Amino acid sequence: MAEANNKDKNESQLTPLQQITYQLRKYKLVEGFVNLQDQANHELTESSVQKQNLAELQALLDQLHPADIAHILEALPLEDRLLIWGMVKAEHDGDVLLEASDAVRETLITDMGSHELIAATEYLDTDEIADLAPNLPQEVMDDVFQSLPITEREQLRAAMSYPEDSVGALMDFDVLTIREDVRMEVVLRYLRRLDELPDHTDQLFVVDRNEQLKGVLLINKLLVSDPDTLVSDAMSEEMIKLHPDDVAKHAANAFERYDLVSASVIDINGKLLGRVTVNTVIDFIREEAENEALNLAGLKEEEDLFAPVLKSVKNRWVWLAVNLVTAFIASRVIGVFEDSIEKLVALAALMPIIAGIGGNSGNQTITMIVRALALEQIDNNSAWKLIAKEIGVSAVNGLIWGTVVGLFTYAIYQSASLGLVMTMAMILNLLLAALLGVLIPLTLRKLGRDPALGSSVMITAVTDSGGFFIFLSLATIFLL
Amino acid sequence: MAEANNKDKNESQLTPLQQITYQLRKYKLVEGFVNLQDQANHELTESSVQKQNLAELQALLDQLHPADIAHILEALPLEDRLLIWGMVKAEHDGDVLLEASDAVRETLITDMGSHELIAATEYLDTDEIADLAPNLPQEVMDDVFQSLPITEREQLRAAMSYPEDSVGALMDFDVLTIREDVRMEVVLRYLRRLDELPDHTDQLFVVDRNEQLKGVLLINKLLVSDPDTLVSDAMSEEMIKLHPDDVAKHAANAFERYDLVSASVIDINGKLLGRVTVNTVIDFIREEAENEALNLAGLKEEEDLFAPVLKSVKNRWVWLAVNLVTAFIASRVIGVFEDSIEKLVALAALMPIIAGIGGNSGNQTITMIVRALALEQIDNNSAWKLIAKEIGVSAVNGLIWGTVVGLFTYAIYQSASLGLVMTMAMILNLLLAALLGVLIPLTLRKLGRDPALGSSVMITAVTDSGGFFIFLSLATIFLL
Repeated sequence: MAEANNKDKNESQLTPLQQITYQLRKYKLVEGFVNLQDQANHELTESSVQKQNLAELQALLDQLHPADIAHILEALPLEDRLLIWGMVKAEHDGDVLLEASDAVRETLITDMGSHELIAATEYLDTDEIADLAPNLPQEVMDDVFQSLPITEREQLRAAMSYPEDSVGALMDFDVLTIREDVRMEVVLRYLRRLDELPDHTDQLFVVDRNEQLKGVLLINKLLVSDPDTLVSDAMSEEMIKLHPDDVAKHAANAFERYDLVSASVIDINGKLLGRVTVNTVIDFIREEAENEALNLAGLKEEEDLFAPVLKSVKNRWVWLAVNLVTAFIASRVIGVFEDSIEKLVALAALMPIIAGIGGNSGNQTITMIVRALALEQIDNNSAWKLIAKEIGVSAVNGLIWGTVVGLFTYAIYQSASLGLVMTMAMILNLLLAALLGVLIPLTLRKLGRDPALGSSVMITAVTDSGGFFIFLSLATIFLL
Repeated sequence: MAEANNKDKNESQLTPLQQITYQLRKYKLVEGFVNLQDQANHELTESSVQKQNLAELQALLDQLHPADIAHILEALPLEDRLLIWGMVKAEHDGDVLLEASDAVRETLITDMGSHELIAATEYLDTDEIADLAPNLPQEVMDDVFQSLPITEREQLRAAMSYPEDSVGALMDFDVLTIREDVRMEVVLRYLRRLDELPDHTDQLFVVDRNEQLKGVLLINKLLVSDPDTLVSDAMSEEMIKLHPDDVAKHAANAFERYDLVSASVIDINGKLLGRVTVNTVIDFIREEAENEALNLAGLKEEEDLFAPVLKSVKNRWVWLAVNLVTAFIASRVIGVFEDSIEKLVALAALMPIIAGIGGNSGNQTITMIVRALALEQIDNNSAWKLIAKEIGVSAVNGLIWGTVVGLFTYAIYQSASLGLVMTMAMILNLLLAALLGVLIPLTLRKLGRDPALGSSVMITAVTDSGGFFIFLSLATIFLL
């Protein structure tokens, strides 16, 4: 009995994912066992034990938050994932789809019929349907449009029209508006008539007859104000106003800096269109960071952990191909010096050191610069200062590590001149890495490209080919 | 006149950083001009134009949010930074220090006297002082402790005692508590007696006489409830409860999944200690993502853009040294095969291709796995599935890219057997990359280490040395 209690206790400390996996395994174990038995017995066992197991699984699922269900589905292999997905309550389908990663969302949608998909959207707001839209079949979207009342149809059309990384794509339409010439008491009475307030309502938007945004009344202000106070006396007119065409990153920066919970979105004429809330911003920030990490590693996009092999190959081939081209170039640079290498084969063993450290150092510089560019902290003035600083850092590093590799070389090959060539090559390649580590992202930026994308591959290409060239030509000049 | 208007318009569209930089430059330009003139004239000019310029700069600064000031200080070279820092209002000093990055904060604190520092803390909450504490001189902290009332002194001591990445470090003490046996009307009256509510108050915490947390009353619920309703009838007992010793990352995951604005923190006995708010969580998420990116690039920590050269060298040397060691090892692997390379010098030109693509592919795998580990989506069961999948991806990639490099080799060196060796080496190195790309992060995790830290360096070391070894031994066996 004591043991059973203990087990219960441990089980309740398991994460939702672990609980589901445990139940799933139990279910599948029994199924496997049943399949071993003869047909007659089969149905009998299934009807009792398995029904019980399924019921337990179902009960567990029913009490989970849609975000947790999405997380569990992402962690399960396809077969198990679809088994569980079939058991999720229809009213949660939409929310789970919203929370799942793009790749996993696709596998779930593929498994659903049109009717199920349309039903799933019925529990969603228009801005949420817009988020799902790119993954939904056209005929489903047509049906969804048909079924919406006119205002919502317009909202959906608007929400779908904003580009992915714009404020418009983060916006929702759940705004509560009030007039400035009423008293707090009236506002309180108005709110009390509602069943509930939209999530993340930390402020009410004060608009005039033409829906022009005049100010915001913070809920916290409403609560501490005298009921007789006029809205116009308590509202604040200084507020963050976003535009739907603003870059989403700017909105995220504003939320981070000014500690916002929600912010208004207005059109160019000052008319209130909607709002952005902090939960959407957090999702955006996470996704941005994730994409950056994935791109750095040469992955096109987030991958379903259990994606079929060919799908993963597709996601990864682009950067491998780019890398192959730069490797071919580096190989040809070495090819030019084959005569030198034939005469002094130690060069072949030493050259990867020069290239490797150059790449590492260049990536350090690039990361610093890309980060500062993202925070908008570099102008033309400071660019020169930064180049000077990075050159300085590389000069110091070059002297230190150049000396180390020089001594290493001398120790192994007993040649002082070979050691000196290593030292010189190291210094020069680090200087090259510093210069281009600053110039590559700044140039990408000037050209209107994302400096984070591909600059790491480029600097590595430069320090590889450049490093081989510098080292092998120095060796050819001074040693042969 | 029209032009002047235009200029005004453009100026107002500048970012705060650009406006400050513009004013600063104007100020320094005049100063430079004045220095060129003779002494007599000097004082006259300075007293008029410069006072005016300084006043404009001051006016601009005074209207900026502390977060914006911190951002501007980060973007300015040290000299300008300290000039502006001296002009920031004393009551903003503490907030600016909080918002600035660690490296920049240090430069600012070094510039301040003890009295200024103590004054700066007077405008801060105890949890904020705890955040600054590691950067403050001991004697300042002693004085601050002395000056605090006893409860706050205890709070500060508690806040300082939590490790950096724990929920305790994110916690603040601004909780509003109510009792469950009162009516909404009483709660509303209680709130109205306060001057203002703490930032991010989206819920009131319901506690009993012993400060045991019984539930939470959402502000949104309070607003829509009938004034006669009892708190116990409107409060919700299902809520997120954090513990101060929880890993901060878990709290961040909860905020992201459940779209929280604030969450309670309780001790093991259920006593309410404080709360965590979404703005702190956003800062934490950003910092985490940043640190990950910096670590990947081999930087120990965030760097002041304008740090002195030697400080930057210190921040970067560790990973360069690690890299150097792995490069030395790779170099010695090649060294073993010097005889083979002497006989067939093409090997020297071709070997970096095998190593490079292996490293790229291995890093793709590592990134996938590290990400899944961070989301807690891998258990022992799925580990085998993942290894199988990654091996599959590598086999396909190896066949594709192996064939490409084989043909490239044949085209250049007219040797079919050399091409075949390239193909085989590529396939084997990609398989090695896949296997270790899964095993390295899983092993680090098993050993209780952070799988994100250093696994990229390790996989590159393996695919470099391994790639050279595979290729050169195949060549030695089949070609020589």
